[in-house]
This record gives sequence, C-alpha cells and structure tokens, in this order.
Amino acid sequence: MEMPKPSADILAKKDHVVSRLLEVLPKDAVIHAEEETRAYECDALTAYKCPPLAAVLPASTDEVSAVLRICFEEGVPVVPRGSGTSLAGGALPTADSVILGVAKLNEVLETNYDDRYIRVQSGRTNLSVSGAVEEEEFFYAPDPSSQLACAISGNVAMNSGGAHCLKYGVTTNNLLGVTMVLMDGTIVELGGAHLDAGGLDLLGVVCGSEGQLGVVTEATLRILRKPEGARPVLIGFNDNEIAGACVAEIIKEGVLPVAIEFMDRLCIETTDKFANAGYPDCEALLIVEVEGSDAEIDFQLGKIMEIARKYDPVELRESKSASESAAIWKGRKSAFGAIGQISDYMCLDGTIPVSSLPFVLKRIAELSEQYGLEVGNVFHAGDGNMHPLILYNANKPGDLELCEAMGADILRLCVEVGGCLTGEHGVGIEKRDLMFSQFDPQDMEVQLLVKDVFDPRWLLNPAKVFPLSVTENRRALAMAAE
Amino acid sequence: MEMPKPSADILAKKDHVVSRLLEVLPKDAVIHAEEETRAYECDALTAYKCPPLAAVLPASTDEVSAVLRICFEEGVPVVPRGSGTSLAGGALPTADSVILGVAKLNEVLETNYDDRYIRVQSGRTNLSVSGAVEEEEFFYAPDPSSQLACAISGNVAMNSGGAHCLKYGVTTNNLLGVTMVLMDGTIVELGGAHLDAGGLDLLGVVCGSEGQLGVVTEATLRILRKPEGARPVLIGFNDNEIAGACVAEIIKEGVLPVAIEFMDRLCIETTDKFANAGYPDCEALLIVEVEGSDAEIDFQLGKIMEIARKYDPVELRESKSASESAAIWKGRKSAFGAIGQISDYMCLDGTIPVSSLPFVLKRIAELSEQYGLEVGNVFHAGDGNMHPLILYNANKPGDLELCEAMGADILRLCVEVGGCLTGEHGVGIEKRDLMFSQFDPQDMEVQLLVKDVFDPRWLLNPAKVFPLSVTENRRALAMAAE
Repeated sequence: MEMPKPSADILAKKDHVVSRLLEVLPKDAVIHAEEETRAYECDALTAYKCPPLAAVLPASTDEVSAVLRICFEEGVPVVPRGSGTSLAGGALPTADSVILGVAKLNEVLETNYDDRYIRVQSGRTNLSVSGAVEEEEFFYAPDPSSQLACAISGNVAMNSGGAHCLKYGVTTNNLLGVTMVLMDGTIVELGGAHLDAGGLDLLGVVCGSEGQLGVVTEATLRILRKPEGARPVLIGFNDNEIAGACVAEIIKEGVLPVAIEFMDRLCIETTDKFANAGYPDCEALLIVEVEGSDAEIDFQLGKIMEIARKYDPVELRESKSASESAAIWKGRKSAFGAIGQISDYMCLDGTIPVSSLPFVLKRIAELSEQYGLEVGNVFHAGDGNMHPLILYNANKPGDLELCEAMGADILRLCVEVGGCLTGEHGVGIEKRDLMFSQFDPQDMEVQLLVKDVFDPRWLLNPAKVFPLSVTENRRALAMAAE
Repeated sequence: MEMPKPSADILAKKDHVVSRLLEVLPKDAVIHAEEETRAYECDALTAYKCPPLAAVLPASTDEVSAVLRICFEEGVPVVPRGSGTSLAGGALPTADSVILGVAKLNEVLETNYDDRYIRVQSGRTNLSVSGAVEEEEFFYAPDPSSQLACAISGNVAMNSGGAHCLKYGVTTNNLLGVTMVLMDGTIVELGGAHLDAGGLDLLGVVCGSEGQLGVVTEATLRILRKPEGARPVLIGFNDNEIAGACVAEIIKEGVLPVAIEFMDRLCIETTDKFANAGYPDCEALLIVEVEGSDAEIDFQLGKIMEIARKYDPVELRESKSASESAAIWKGRKSAFGAIGQISDYMCLDGTIPVSSLPFVLKRIAELSEQYGLEVGNVFHAGDGNMHPLILYNANKPGDLELCEAMGADILRLCVEVGGCLTGEHGVGIEKRDLMFSQFDPQDMEVQLLVKDVFDPRWLLNPAKVFPLSVTENRRALAMAAE
C-alpha cells in the first residue's frame, strides 16, 4: 500500500515541534528518540510499518487540545491512537506525523445506573468499561474480539461491533455523547446522556469517522442490565452454502439471537486443536446464542433448532451447562489467534445482505482456488459481517501483493451483492483505494466537504479512509487557499 | 415567534420564478395563485401561519432536482414538506419561499423480506409502509401518533419516534439509506441496505436535520418480523411522582417493555370520556406493554407487576383479550385529539433522564400554578420523552405568549436536569430560540459549519432550527462571500 511522501519541511523542523510539545506536556509524555518512536510504527495490521516523527501521551482533554493547537499551527499531521489494535491500519503513522495516544486517559468519570449510562475517558479499554459496572449486574454491549485491549476511542473511531452486536447493535447504537477536540484545539461536546438533541446530530458522523474529524477524549456510553441468562447451540453442517441458507432463514423468520457465528472447516479444525473446544468434524459450524429468561431461551432455541433440522445438520448440540457454553465460545473467540499460529493471514471485513451468504461463500471458494491462497471463514453471520482470513506467507516475495489483490476482489464482491467494504474494522489504509467501488464521485464529494469543515488543513489521520490521490489533492487545495 | 422579513427582491420576481418552475413541472404541480397557496400556510403547529410564494409537487427525484436547481440559481428559499403534520412548525413557509411537497412520491420501490428492508419514496405515509409488508407478517417499527398521515420524509427530517420506540428505537435506528437531493440539484445516495459503510456516515446527520441539508426523496427502511404477541398492563396510582418512580425502577431493573406510556388525571379523564377506554379514577396511569412469546410475556409482565405492587397502585389490570388491549390503547392514542376537544393546547416535546421524572413532574405542576395555565401530561415515559400539553385560550389576548413562556421554562428545565429540548418533534421554529440553552457557542458553530457545506446559500427550510439572528447572519455572510 502506497504511503504519502513525507514532507521534508516537517522532518527538518522536528526539533522545533518537539520543543513546542515539551512546553505543554511533561517530558515523559513526549516520545521523540528514534529508538523509542519505533514502538508506534504499526498497529495490528502488521504488514505495514512506519515510525512517526514523534508520539505524545497527553493526560487530559486540555493537554490534547494544547497538542492539537501546536500541530495545527505547525502544519504537522496527527494520527490519533487508542490501543493500536486496528486491523485496517487505522492507527498507522506516516513519517512526518505525530502519534497522539490516549492511553493515559483511562478513568471512569461517572456511573449512573438509574439512567443507565457511564462516562469514561476514551483511552479506557472496552472490557474494563463492563468491568466498572459488573458489580451492579450491568454491561456495555459492543464486544470486539480485541475487547481486552482495544480502547473506546478506537471503538468510536471505527464504529466497532462484535459477536453480540446482532441484538445490541454496534458502537453507534450504544454511544450517547462524546467530548471531542478539533484539529485547531477547540473542545466540543456532541450528544449527551439523553435522547437525540435538536439541531444537527454530529455524533453519528463522528462515530466511525476513523479519526478524520477530531480526537475523542471522553465518551458517554449506554450500559444495559445483564440478561437473566444465555445459552448457545452448536449446529454443524457438511456444506458451507447450506449453513449459509440456514442463517438466512433464521434471520428471515424474525428470531433475534444475540449472536450467530459461522466457522468453516479450516477454522473449525484449527481452533478445535488450539482451544480444545470439542467441535464436531464437519464443513461448517454455527454458534447461535439466545438470551433472556429460561422460558424465553427454551422458546427461541426451540424455534432455531426447528429451522436447523430442515437443513439436515450433522450436529445439533444445545449447551447444557455454563462450562459447555464456555467451551463453545472459547473456540470461536480464539479463532484469529489459532489461525495466526499456523500461518500469516490477512483478515477482511466486508458486509453482505444475509440472503447472499450462500452465493458469496461459493465465490470466495472459487477465488481461493484461482489465487492459490487458502481462506478461512469465521464471521458474524447474523448481520452479514464477514471476516474471511486469507492465508499467505509473509516471507515469500509477492505473496502479500497476491493476498491484497484477492482481498480486493472479495471486497468488491461484497459491494456488488449489495453490501459494503467494511463492517467494523474501518477503511484505514487497507480499503482506502477501493472506496470508489462503493461511492460515486458526487457521494464521495459530500464526505470530503464535511472533512474540509472539521479538518480544513487535512492534517488528521493522513493517508487513511480516502484514496491517496484524493487526500493529497484536497490537502494541496487547502494549503493553496491559505 | 418572529419570522424573517421576506425579501422584496424575491417577491418582485415571483412571476419569473413561477415560469421557470413551469418549464420543469406540469401545470398542476406548480401552485402559485394566492387563494391556492393558502393551503400550505401552516403545518400542525397551527398557531403560526404564512402562505408561501408558491408550492410545487414534483413526481420524481429528477423533478425535485430540477426544482432545487432553479431555486438555488434564483436564490429562493425552499421549505420541504411531507404531510405537514409537524408539531414544531418544521414545515411552516416564509412569504418568500417555495414549498416543496413530496406527496406525489408515494410508491414502494422494492421489498426484500430475506434481508428485511423496504425501499420507498419519501412521501409515503408511515402506516402505509407497514401496510405494504403486512401480508408477510412484517412491520416498520417507528410509530408516531400521526402515523396515519405523516410521511417518511418528515419522519427522517425529525428523527421521529412513537410509543413503541422504547424497544425498537426511533427513525435513525431503523433507517438504512436515503436518496437525497442537495440544494444545487445534485442527487446523492447515503447509506444503503447494508451495515454501516466505510467513510463518513452522513446518514446519521441527515436523519433529524429537519430539511436543513437536502430533500430526501427515497428511503431504505429496516422492516421487522411481527412479534408472536403483545399484551399491555394498566397501572393506576394516586400520585404522579410515585408513578414516575415506578417507571424509573422498571427501567433500572432492565426489563424492556415495548412501551411505557404515562397519563395524568386531566388526560385520563378527558380521554376516557372521549374514547370510552374504561380507565380507572386515579391521578396517574401507566400503560406498560411487552411483546414476545406467551411464556416471555408472562415472565416480563410478572416482573413488571411485582415492581408496580411495591408502589401501592390503585389499579393493576393485565389485559385478558385483544379487545381489552385495544380499549387500553385507544384511550392513549386519542389523547391529543381528546384534549383538543376541550381546549386549545401547545404540545411540548422535551426529554429527560428517566430518573428525574418525579422531580420534573413536580416542577411542571408548580409552573402550572405559577402561570395559571392547566397542563396535561401524556408521554413516552420509558425513554423520558415528555409531551406536556399546555392548555390556553387562543382567543384570549396574551394567552399564547404566556403559554410560550411557560413552555420555554419547561424545556429549559428538561435541559437543566440533563435532558434536551426535543425528543421526536424537532426544533422547528418552536424551539429555535432556545437552542443556546442546549448548545455552547462552539458546539453550535460546528453544526453551522456543516450546514454551510450542504446549503452554502442558507436557502433550505429558513427560520427553523437555529436562532433567527444566527441564520440571518450566516446567510448574509454567505451572500457577501459570493
């Protein structure tokens, strides 16, 4: 993936910029020695690496504001970073940019059980938000696989989802308000702990904006009372497409599980070996989980198993205990790690209409054959959010490029069947150059105009989201107009 | 409420503008005779009236585009209009504006049950969207009280809710995509029938933007499978605050009814007489409805009634039949109409944190005494969306102004306790001058910058949403920059 040429002017004034940053931050919050900036050279999309000019770790909204004002004045690009778990290169630095990490902003600011919200600083990890309200039997719903590490700031930036988002929605459905710092240092409040306020709802456009509009430092999140209980059923099939058809019928029938997860043979075998999950020997596996009272669980699982039986499953196993449920989920949750043990891989993140699952799985198998690269399929099938894992060899010249080309074909396929390029990982640098397969030029132009408003000098999170030529052109126009 | 002074220039070139509109629309789609434009002089906020310069009724997205391009070139303001049911004056004309009505755009364009969406033209009424998918046992969830008449375009503009939105969310939670025409005639597509696409999510900011950003001509809406069943329980109390405390505990306990509706004595008595609902003689009435299988309904209603019993209800009546359920709802749904039979009224629409319900009800009673105006309270209590109805006499000089002042006090009270100015009716002209009690100047400025992008000449839906001085200042700046 092409990265922009770093600005020689900015590289030349590194010392000046660092000394200005040191005026507003303590010494240990400004990282600028070359051997130390390397710690920020990549995120979880490890195929791409580039150390930043510097990295800063502000400890308050005011410090974030001071940093952004300096970078704005100096014309230095800024890459906001949560925990660096982006799978799309969303927090990848450029050589002339300052990484703005929010790791020190990890406090709980307010908890309100009566009105069911929590206000946290944005560097707090996803799981520790639920942790903070666990005692009162509440939880925060979105649950990305990386939830132990990933920060709320990144969840907001990418509009993250997770296995249980089929019922509870993704970040945007659970985010009530943010404090955000604009590129010029202005601090704004968007939304709040209430229903939709009047005026323009800017919270929606900030959620999922991948750090293009500002740096979110605080978030007010909806918390929910934990359900009475939950129970998964494991359904095995000897055919991917039949499993896909079963998912489509469950959704069509209007049953609403909290999760419908899908794994194909490669993933089943690999994760079963890795996590000892006790998975059956079959081509495709569904984990369908429902929540509620015992009566409701029985009723819903009954309906789901009745549908599943029509598709001739080779396994239909309702969990009978908490430990059985844990084993079923342990396999699924360790899928990425397990695959990582056997090969390098690229994890895609397209979405498709649920009804096209069987067709898309068939086409992915054909592409796999055509490119000669193995594919593991593990994904949130209920809402059509696919995560094909393309296996490749990072040490084999040309393999990454082949993998990228195949990934692009799969994502274009998602768009063709009526889906989109990304469900929860974001565009980042990974899907940047595919954006015109999703958006017409006039639809894209409206997005660019909104970006112009929030970040007129095009300094925030450079080289992400929009095709590189578009970004550079826009930035040049902005500079010329100054 | 002050209206902007109409532009003499525009009034003077009315014939020219009309003749240009007649070049792109059939004769009967351009209404310009004075006696005919009067049909568009107000919406459901009937206290304010002003006939427009003209009204047009385009029959396609292309015709909408042609109309907007002409108005853009001529500098003529445009007021988009669905069915004109706005309670906030959202579709109120100015004397120099063209009303753009979407009533002719009422077709169903696509229905997809497998992927659970419907695509309609935006003039289609809310109820007829559900009607179009009823045969297959699907429905469209948001259900404003005006659903028989109100258009999807208006629902999108106001991010409308309804009694059943506690469970299903408001319009923004059920809207997947729109076709929108910008003020210069450009046609854009935002969102689509899929999960969150990459790039900036402009759909969220369009939803609830009250016609400030463009004219929505088509909408893709999520449809849901009808639940197995539904059953309400009627709970009567002899104290408003105790009823409020009961609602707060139901919400805190994490039970999720589809609806929790609240009525006070004035509303109970008036609607009972009007609709023969069989309501008990008490100070406050809750209608709590749950949905699902019989087992789930029993379980949830059991929990709700257990909570209610702690608050010493004077009535606790579970519906035993479909006709009992219908009678319970008939009273609630005719509440506004019933009050309208006995007095003029102004319907407010603030939201508050559920936990502050008891306090807010007490303060409203105090304000009622202070202003000497009766107040009826009927509202969606579960999500804290209040609809106080202030009774006044439209024929008594000064009464409307007194009523407005009291309404403003109530809405400021909503903001003070952590709520906001509007839940589902929108800002319109009604709450325009209160916006600075909700938004700091720098938060407002970001909204204005986004408005600048979509409508650089500030022609769309003039005199709404933002304080008049702000709008006029912004418009003057835009004109000066041209």
